[in-house]
Amino acid sequence: MSKETRMAEEVKLLKTWSSPFGLRIVWALKLKGIEYESIDEDLSNKSPLLLHSNPIYKKIPVLIHNGKPISESVVILEYIDQTWTQNPILPQHPFEKARQRFWAKFNDNKLIPSVWSVFVNEGKEKEEALLENLKLVEEELKGKRFFGGDKIGLVDLVFGWLANLMGVFEEVTGLKLIDDRFPLLSAWILEFSEIPIIKDNWPSHDKLVVKYRALHQKFHPLK
Amino acid sequence: MSKETRMAEEVKLLKTWSSPFGLRIVWALKLKGIEYESIDEDLSNKSPLLLHSNPIYKKIPVLIHNGKPISESVVILEYIDQTWTQNPILPQHPFEKARQRFWAKFNDNKLIPSVWSVFVNEGKEKEEALLENLKLVEEELKGKRFFGGDKIGLVDLVFGWLANLMGVFEEVTGLKLIDDRFPLLSAWILEFSEIPIIKDNWPSHDKLVVKYRALHQKFHPLK
Repeated sequence: MSKETRMAEEVKLLKTWSSPFGLRIVWALKLKGIEYESIDEDLSNKSPLLLHSNPIYKKIPVLIHNGKPISESVVILEYIDQTWTQNPILPQHPFEKARQRFWAKFNDNKLIPSVWSVFVNEGKEKEEALLENLKLVEEELKGKRFFGGDKIGLVDLVFGWLANLMGVFEEVTGLKLIDDRFPLLSAWILEFSEIPIIKDNWPSHDKLVVKYRALHQKFHPLK
Repeated sequence: MSKETRMAEEVKLLKTWSSPFGLRIVWALKLKGIEYESIDEDLSNKSPLLLHSNPIYKKIPVLIHNGKPISESVVILEYIDQTWTQNPILPQHPFEKARQRFWAKFNDNKLIPSVWSVFVNEGKEKEEALLENLKLVEEELKGKRFFGGDKIGLVDLVFGWLANLMGVFEEVTGLKLIDDRFPLLSAWILEFSEIPIIKDNWPSHDKLVVKYRALHQKFHPLK
């Protein structure tokens, strides 16, 4: 990259204060040491910049790099890793890379919907389905400190929401899910949460509890 | 890669005769000129190899390369492209790469479910939603011969099912969806279907019609 291009480098991140999908991008940019402008969107009144940058989904997060917008959080993470190669979040070997991509998809397509399903509906069957998913995640941590191995990687950033939102979720619903049935996941949550770039960028726990308590009441008006 | 490793190379693909997700992998392997063993699964009686190779989803396609299984069709496509670099299906530039990944996700998460929804339920509203998605695809083809540009790429392989299954779908439901409202998509279907590695590997049209007609009758028993 020429000096001129580097000088012109402009990075903007459209996110919300609470979204775990936005938070993964914050963590990745911090890990890479990239300066960026953070723009918090009000989803009830989306900015023209968001509507213009992600016309198909009109969703955050969007990363805008030198005027070019990229949507879909895992696509953004891959973009960041290829563009700024310091502190890689994906391994080089194709098989290991495929494994990280597989688990990122598992989180977004299976784990998150199963947590959401318990949050809005509860019920034993849904809880069992969620516990099955957590067991698979526990299994994947066997013999490893982080999902990425010795250091955090893409899957750690993607699973990172577990380390704070699960606590909020447990507080709001009164369900205890990640306990000593999941010793590796519990240990990972503790260790992951202690990493400076992670803990320095959590949204406020108290604000999250207020937000999710209101949401929970909306789905359970009689409670 | 050393000569010894190359000699030991073993590639197996678990698929079904009709799955569009398996077909994308067939096309990618053919495009790369990779010799492989094709194993058609009977999904009502899954093989021990499938259950062992994809214990989480127990789904096809699975690519097994030198004993190591990879699941999730887009993850497999990326693996193939990184492992065998001839005839690349992804561009090098991070922004262009992100764009291809975005559209691959759009196909799997938005377009396919919207087609399926019309297939099983029909109704004006669902049809409108599908047409909106097709309009976005049409838009993406502006100024390009293929989704990949001058040559087919990952998005062409992922959207490839449109080029044969939409015809089957139209024949079975009696709905005409891809017509002169979508001139670029119609032209792409014709051109894509003429590529030798594509047309030489279509599943039988007649068998597909029989399969989808039976499925359609299951969802519309009174028709």
